[in-house]
Amino acid sequence: MREVNEGQREVVDFRVGVLGGGQLGRMMALAGRRLGIRFRFLEPKPEPPVAETGQVVKAAYDDADALPSFADGLGVVTYEFENVPARAADWLAERLPLHPRAEALATSSDRAREKALFRDLGIETAPYALVSERRDLERAAAQVGFPGVLKRRTLGYDGKGQARVQGPDDLDGAWSAIEEAPAIYERLVDFHRELSVLGVRGADGELRVYPLAENDHRDGILVRSTVPAPSSAEIPDPTALATSYLRRLMERLDYVGVLALELFQRGEELLANEFAPRVHNSGHWSLDGAVTDQFENHVRAVAGLPLGETDAVIPTVMVNVLGAAPALPPLLRVPGAHVHMYEKPPRPGRKLGHVNVCARSRAELDSRVRAVVGSLEGG
Amino acid sequence: MREVNEGQREVVDFRVGVLGGGQLGRMMALAGRRLGIRFRFLEPKPEPPVAETGQVVKAAYDDADALPSFADGLGVVTYEFENVPARAADWLAERLPLHPRAEALATSSDRAREKALFRDLGIETAPYALVSERRDLERAAAQVGFPGVLKRRTLGYDGKGQARVQGPDDLDGAWSAIEEAPAIYERLVDFHRELSVLGVRGADGELRVYPLAENDHRDGILVRSTVPAPSSAEIPDPTALATSYLRRLMERLDYVGVLALELFQRGEELLANEFAPRVHNSGHWSLDGAVTDQFENHVRAVAGLPLGETDAVIPTVMVNVLGAAPALPPLLRVPGAHVHMYEKPPRPGRKLGHVNVCARSRAELDSRVRAVVGSLEGG
Repeated sequence: MREVNEGQREVVDFRVGVLGGGQLGRMMALAGRRLGIRFRFLEPKPEPPVAETGQVVKAAYDDADALPSFADGLGVVTYEFENVPARAADWLAERLPLHPRAEALATSSDRAREKALFRDLGIETAPYALVSERRDLERAAAQVGFPGVLKRRTLGYDGKGQARVQGPDDLDGAWSAIEEAPAIYERLVDFHRELSVLGVRGADGELRVYPLAENDHRDGILVRSTVPAPSSAEIPDPTALATSYLRRLMERLDYVGVLALELFQRGEELLANEFAPRVHNSGHWSLDGAVTDQFENHVRAVAGLPLGETDAVIPTVMVNVLGAAPALPPLLRVPGAHVHMYEKPPRPGRKLGHVNVCARSRAELDSRVRAVVGSLEGG
Repeated sequence: MREVNEGQREVVDFRVGVLGGGQLGRMMALAGRRLGIRFRFLEPKPEPPVAETGQVVKAAYDDADALPSFADGLGVVTYEFENVPARAADWLAERLPLHPRAEALATSSDRAREKALFRDLGIETAPYALVSERRDLERAAAQVGFPGVLKRRTLGYDGKGQARVQGPDDLDGAWSAIEEAPAIYERLVDFHRELSVLGVRGADGELRVYPLAENDHRDGILVRSTVPAPSSAEIPDPTALATSYLRRLMERLDYVGVLALELFQRGEELLANEFAPRVHNSGHWSLDGAVTDQFENHVRAVAGLPLGETDAVIPTVMVNVLGAAPALPPLLRVPGAHVHMYEKPPRPGRKLGHVNVCARSRAELDSRVRAVVGSLEGG
């Protein structure tokens, strides 16, 4: 077959390197290409979602032979998942601008460091205690109380690497469920809802914040985000406090790019759960509901370009497509529905795509979301 | 370099083939990829704008050896420019669905057939006469009148292949300017403004129409489109008539995909100039100003998927980036400005990108457009 996938060429000024080749990298490329920016991904898995959106270097993240060819000629390096090996991040950071900086990665990928940073910045969290070995667990549980949740310090995501603890009898099971790794034991707090606040910060310190997203999870996996998060007398609008938390965090980390901070709201109170030093599933609504989407803004920030407006243009609900490949026609027939698919093979619970549902009125939005959810469940 | 640009893979259900690899193909791919649809382009030039948005088969459009490998495994074939050789279109249409159909191509690429179709459908045009040889020209000019314009029947675009005729003395010069090719002589009519109407039609006959664009040309090249086209007492809103013209044309051609009809407005009157059987520069505003952009809708139509809404969501002015590569930062700083670059090497008059400027109010829109134009002229 007479095929050429063009490589470097004269007119290309700038290529962004991305560690990871999943859907976040894919959407970053589809957004960045609009601006005339090209991409190169480092991704060990075959057939990644970024295929045919840029160059793909197929190698492990810490493959010392692959890193130089991945890095060659890049203008900047970023990442689309937080479990980048520190050695790889450090190697790259010595040679190229790495945004966000390695400290953000190192902090977010260790729950103990992350929580310590929150405390240090006066960002409220649920009560917690460190658990290095099995014998720490009783003391931690006694100090923090029940019910709780035991979470691995590292390598947890989408609800994996954590176990609920209702009382003392659950401690052994929880410890083996997280594979006896260093962990934190956290009080399971009552809350009204889960929120996230996303911001983007430029190299010059300019910070722009997206409207709050209200997030619904099932089995630890995000199923839906509603933006702007509604508020009421009982559940007031916590934008000011959330923005203040986000600003403290991003400024302390001298952060460049998009960051997502996950929060629990209880009345006026906001407890930080964790942050992700990258574009985030709860920001996917912005592809159709904001002036500038999170992917373009991340690319602008890491490429040293001015940031775009983060205002919402229309109320939007993002519904994840999980597990089974949907039939497209019924989804595309729903007015205001925007379908985004990642070209991933179906597997139970897997994020295969999302649908952004937009409408001017809340009633119209609800009815459109019902149509989309019905179509996804029926397909 | 350890690079893999992934080819076909199990999870890909559908690949669209595109004849041509310019910016229209690029934006088609960036839109279609969102839906999980992949692309393959047939393009003879090196380093085309579609590089790294899909597979690229580098060969001439009528290269009999390349067509089979281009066609292999495609779900449908479409095109992004109208001068596709008829032999290639016919060869493909015998083997695969070709949308829009070859008849639309054949008609739009010959001004005589195009005008005859307009007449046949009751679509008004400026007076014109056919000119096959030099000696036809006096008769044509006498019949149609002065001033006029002599246009090649085939292979003209962006104002090329045509010459103005103020009076009898210009006939010789005009004839040699169009390289003595078969032509039409057309009366140069006075008009208030140039408009275009774009529609998308599905395989099931569903037709959706975008709001009218008011277009400004300079030296035959589109410089700006304003959507929705403003109207006034003197220049009334001609949407109903434009839609009627478009519907007649698309239904007669049993058209599938996006079609652009260019019009001259004179008071209540609309004269058809020409149509393009493809996505069109005057529809680029829809990337940021419409519920569903023209590229996604074209892909949906040719892939047999339901069409998306064509309504405008915010007033938008599309400004072409012509000739010189702009500095991005000042453009990105204009609120409501969305930058689209095609990664083409600069060349005088060349379309290198466009900026969609959006604003809620006309005054705000005007001021933002001035900022963008100032930045393009200053850069």
